[in-house]
Amino acid sequence: MDYQQILERIYQSILPYAKEGKQADYIPELAKVNPDQFGMSIHTIYGEEASIEQADTRFSIQSISKVFALAMCLSIKGDDLWLKVGKEPSGSSFNSLIQLEVENGIPRNPFLNAGAIVMADILYSHLENPEDDFLAFVRAVSGNETICYNQNVAMSERENGYLNAAIANLLKYHGTIENDIESVLHFYFMMCSIEMSCRELSLAFLAFANHRRKFNYAGIELTASQVKRMNAIMQTCGFYDEAGEFAYLVGLPGKSGVGGGIAAIYPLQYSVAVWSPRLNPKGNSVMGIKALELLTTETKESIF
Amino acid sequence: MDYQQILERIYQSILPYAKEGKQADYIPELAKVNPDQFGMSIHTIYGEEASIEQADTRFSIQSISKVFALAMCLSIKGDDLWLKVGKEPSGSSFNSLIQLEVENGIPRNPFLNAGAIVMADILYSHLENPEDDFLAFVRAVSGNETICYNQNVAMSERENGYLNAAIANLLKYHGTIENDIESVLHFYFMMCSIEMSCRELSLAFLAFANHRRKFNYAGIELTASQVKRMNAIMQTCGFYDEAGEFAYLVGLPGKSGVGGGIAAIYPLQYSVAVWSPRLNPKGNSVMGIKALELLTTETKESIF
Amino acid sequence: MDYQQILERIYQSILPYAKEGKQADYIPELAKVNPDQFGMSIHTIYGEEASIEQADTRFSIQSISKVFALAMCLSIKGDDLWLKVGKEPSGSSFNSLIQLEVENGIPRNPFLNAGAIVMADILYSHLENPEDDFLAFVRAVSGNETICYNQNVAMSERENGYLNAAIANLLKYHGTIENDIESVLHFYFMMCSIEMSCRELSLAFLAFANHRRKFNYAGIELTASQVKRMNAIMQTCGFYDEAGEFAYLVGLPGKSGVGGGIAAIYPLQYSVAVWSPRLNPKGNSVMGIKALELLTTETKESIF
Amino acid sequence: MDYQQILERIYQSILPYAKEGKQADYIPELAKVNPDQFGMSIHTIYGEEASIEQADTRFSIQSISKVFALAMCLSIKGDDLWLKVGKEPSGSSFNSLIQLEVENGIPRNPFLNAGAIVMADILYSHLENPEDDFLAFVRAVSGNETICYNQNVAMSERENGYLNAAIANLLKYHGTIENDIESVLHFYFMMCSIEMSCRELSLAFLAFANHRRKFNYAGIELTASQVKRMNAIMQTCGFYDEAGEFAYLVGLPGKSGVGGGIAAIYPLQYSVAVWSPRLNPKGNSVMGIKALELLTTETKESIF
Repeated sequence: MDYQQILERIYQSILPYAKEGKQADYIPELAKVNPDQFGMSIHTIYGEEASIEQADTRFSIQSISKVFALAMCLSIKGDDLWLKVGKEPSGSSFNSLIQLEVENGIPRNPFLNAGAIVMADILYSHLENPEDDFLAFVRAVSGNETICYNQNVAMSERENGYLNAAIANLLKYHGTIENDIESVLHFYFMMCSIEMSCRELSLAFLAFANHRRKFNYAGIELTASQVKRMNAIMQTCGFYDEAGEFAYLVGLPGKSGVGGGIAAIYPLQYSVAVWSPRLNPKGNSVMGIKALELLTTETKESIF
Repeated sequence: MDYQQILERIYQSILPYAKEGKQADYIPELAKVNPDQFGMSIHTIYGEEASIEQADTRFSIQSISKVFALAMCLSIKGDDLWLKVGKEPSGSSFNSLIQLEVENGIPRNPFLNAGAIVMADILYSHLENPEDDFLAFVRAVSGNETICYNQNVAMSERENGYLNAAIANLLKYHGTIENDIESVLHFYFMMCSIEMSCRELSLAFLAFANHRRKFNYAGIELTASQVKRMNAIMQTCGFYDEAGEFAYLVGLPGKSGVGGGIAAIYPLQYSVAVWSPRLNPKGNSVMGIKALELLTTETKESIF
Repeated sequence: MDYQQILERIYQSILPYAKEGKQADYIPELAKVNPDQFGMSIHTIYGEEASIEQADTRFSIQSISKVFALAMCLSIKGDDLWLKVGKEPSGSSFNSLIQLEVENGIPRNPFLNAGAIVMADILYSHLENPEDDFLAFVRAVSGNETICYNQNVAMSERENGYLNAAIANLLKYHGTIENDIESVLHFYFMMCSIEMSCRELSLAFLAFANHRRKFNYAGIELTASQVKRMNAIMQTCGFYDEAGEFAYLVGLPGKSGVGGGIAAIYPLQYSVAVWSPRLNPKGNSVMGIKALELLTTETKESIF
Repeated sequence: MDYQQILERIYQSILPYAKEGKQADYIPELAKVNPDQFGMSIHTIYGEEASIEQADTRFSIQSISKVFALAMCLSIKGDDLWLKVGKEPSGSSFNSLIQLEVENGIPRNPFLNAGAIVMADILYSHLENPEDDFLAFVRAVSGNETICYNQNVAMSERENGYLNAAIANLLKYHGTIENDIESVLHFYFMMCSIEMSCRELSLAFLAFANHRRKFNYAGIELTASQVKRMNAIMQTCGFYDEAGEFAYLVGLPGKSGVGGGIAAIYPLQYSVAVWSPRLNPKGNSVMGIKALELLTTETKESIF
């Protein structure tokens, strides 16, 4: 398969959607990004690679960082992780407090903000230097030592993050998190602020695409079964309340972020990352979803 | 792979769970079934087959019939179906009225009772002889002309089906269904009452396991893409509010019913059906889920 | 106090609101009523009386009938009534199914539709001839033998009453009602269909305004304490989710109906009824609420 | 009426309930209070007074302070207050976040924690020295210059007040409060920490019992109509989700607090305060509610 050609064909097909949607603007730093950008990168488990357009421009990966956090938590806690967070799709908006209150402070899944705050708390308790250790893992899994946090984005989120602060306080009230709220939130926002390009993100996700290869990066180890189960969670919970739509249209496990990035994998075949800042009303990149839909249609490959 | 041997090994491993759980007893006809039964059957797309224990005993397929209804609705209405029913996981119990009220009478997905009642209404409007035509399709897709409704089960459900009647009335109030409530409910309960064995169910689901083969049974045609998308919906919505757990443990698209049956597929490989009446608190067969978990573990094959 | 003069002054003051709001049109029979009508009538416990405009035109009392049903249920069951229905304000729309589902089939209060359907079920079980006995009580308490049901309104409601049918089915599912659903709904809609004029309604409510007078009508007896407690329930639950607003603006216990009627009382002073079909978005008569607000302002009398 | 004798008779009657219920223990300072205390005090608008038992022991008035906050907010903002907070009973637990989220950050009424935090924010914006000015008003209305905050209680609440912090963050997210969250919460907890005896509380509430007397204390003025409307809000919203039950049993406007105090009024007759730390499951004083129920039964006086 000529992935370079496929990606270029896809790009031509989605150009009509280039002005659809609106970039995230709830924090000033994200609102500053030029919305008219697009990048895409793919890596097969056999070493092939293809990239188009701004595949090397770094962007704020935001919620995609939750996948890295989950890998670390699963490695550290094993299935005990599921005592503090569920693994069911939420069926409602990604930041809903209602579900959390009804279900007594146990977030429905690790990719909701509430679930990720619980993971931040767990990592904060178990890592010696939470920020350094998390970054070290992300750098190792993507094989790139230049990946960094963006302090401005993190600060900007914290200052306006009243909803996440409400969630953290509710989690603390229910006893689900154990550390100081400010520290947990700071760490959570730092994780979200990591900047990567499509090429870097695709390479990092290659580690999840091949459960037959040993998963061991910066001391974070996962079994083959754990890698497959992470994919299952990405499949059912990775796209806010559009997980069903994404499964229906695209059919690949993955994770999106409000920065406009999406990373996905086709197990035992490839990983792919796409980025474009304009979002649909559910918070997922308009061009990103279109591009992935065309990718599985063109290649006639999806997990189903 | 020697599936016969694998199935027999699985059976030995799950015997310790043989008395766990409780069969459905909300209608007298289901309560009468001997709970200490188990059957399992598998069919590969290459023609292999294996079956163990009571694989030929027929049972009430109940909600598994929703998969057949969805195939018919998709064939008849195409993507217009999604104007009347969503495709997102529900994140709450399978018969919850709350979601329906909050979301103005559009069921979250076709596998909730509310969603299936909407499908029953659509089929009732479009089929000349709804009951005959539905049965004809199920018989054709499973290649077995002896499959039948169980009128006693259907009557028994209707008589006690206050919750489903509440749902149907709410759907009518919101204008989502157009036919007479009694007729729609009667047809819905008839569909649920179909009886099939594991061997028959597995054979029927083989049609969904291979999107490369033409799907055309009793005049119901689906494209390759539609078959794959049905699998996506089974993956995200097929197991009530345990869809995430099932994806995590098993990793196959499928559908369960309160009669204790589960049918699942591994795309381009095999279909499988398992049955045992004792249910866990979420309404899924205890031994059935264990058996499928072991199947993907033993074969090291799952979609992830 | 010259009530005749007060009422006439009130009428002049509220004329500017004569075209505000929209009459109920969810059933054809209510939609046929000329919306530009207004009547008001007041009776003191000392025998004074005043009436203006269409005070003698009969209208559909609808939910105001729930007060009569409550009087009968309290007389028959005493405080055991509260095992099947609560007495807290609902804090949400008058026909919400959500609360009912969350609270396991026990309606929050007797003036919600769900609560009134439970009362209809109780009366249906305890009265020899439910329809005759209910009408006999209403005639006795208002001292008028010509008051009647309107069969057309009742039939028309039943035919379109999918939401109430959903509620009744949910109540039956939870075991809160014991009789056949159709019979209970028919009786419920009959009660709502009673037609009375402002003068008749005001006279009937005089019985609740004076707990020092013996309450005994057509065999329905209430103690002084029970009469006062009925007033308390009217105060906290009588105006759908506008109970707080009504208490704030008017400060009298009362009950409204979607036919545009409102009956209220000032304990140990007077009863009052007002009618005008145009409703505000919460389902209460626009001119009716204005008129009562002015009445307590003009007389400087309210319970607070 | 010999109120002294009535109060003593009441006390004898409620002694059997002296060990029922459990005092609030969610903050250490409240858990330290000896639960086996009881006090009661009544003041008529004609100058009569009666007090029994520990009527002069000060306790933490907690949510009763919300009545004083409402008086100040109404005086300062008039009906504009209702742009930021509703006046409907909540129909759910006093600290529920669900309602707040569903209703876009506008608390249902001023006596919910969320509503009181909004009032704290308003006062914080409008008062020159919020803590001094609030205390000055409470001292003036109760005619007692020795009333004070309890800093320990306030600190203790803040340290454990994760739920209130969640609420404040959610209010800030929705733009309902404008000041710094920490400052608003500190002021809110200070208000709750005020300590008064039954005698002092009863005297303070006398100001609300008589709308014919000028309401003007420490510069806080209310019209007769505003005083009556405050009573209406106490009636419909003063007892968490037991407002209907209290209206039914007692029939007086009032406000309770988790410190075990209840203050109530009978308009144009008397004010009354009662205190006993043991609470029922809804958070209201067991002996307190019994005492008030007996008071209105014995005197045959209630607003209904």
